[in-house]
Amino acid sequence: MTTKATFFHAGCPVCVDAEQQFAESLNPEKFDVEIVHLGTAPERLADAEKAGVKSVPAFVIGDATYHINFGASLADLK
Amino acid sequence: MTTKATFFHAGCPVCVDAEQQFAESLNPEKFDVEIVHLGTAPERLADAEKAGVKSVPAFVIGDATYHINFGASLADLK
Repeated sequence: MTTKATFFHAGCPVCVDAEQQFAESLNPEKFDVEIVHLGTAPERLADAEKAGVKSVPAFVIGDATYHINFGASLADLK
Repeated sequence: MTTKATFFHAGCPVCVDAEQQFAESLNPEKFDVEIVHLGTAPERLADAEKAGVKSVPAFVIGDATYHINFGASLADLK
């Protein structure tokens, strides 16, 4: 069974790098990864905020949020 | 071909969680993951510092360092 993992980003260089290293590298047998670009899908900002995302790039896996380095704060994307 | 990925941690709750979610979840076809506990392997602190690790948990993949959330600063582990 796979776990849903959502990767929120905003197209910034830090985001793209994290996407390539992590979002595209998680074991597909374990995770069902959804990649959400908050710049092109601003309607997902509420989802990110609700999940506790403070900055991008970040993963939301189940109830947990993982911020990887720092690309941009969520507040700056609104 | 696999890429070497080193996961540095210190046994803290944030570290253990990140280890389970990421270090054990990267695609084994892409990454050769080494898990280093800096509490039990303090001789690796210099490696971590040289790679740009400022806090744990963190991954070093090639020349890049990825800090995931914040467990403890490297300075506090010395």
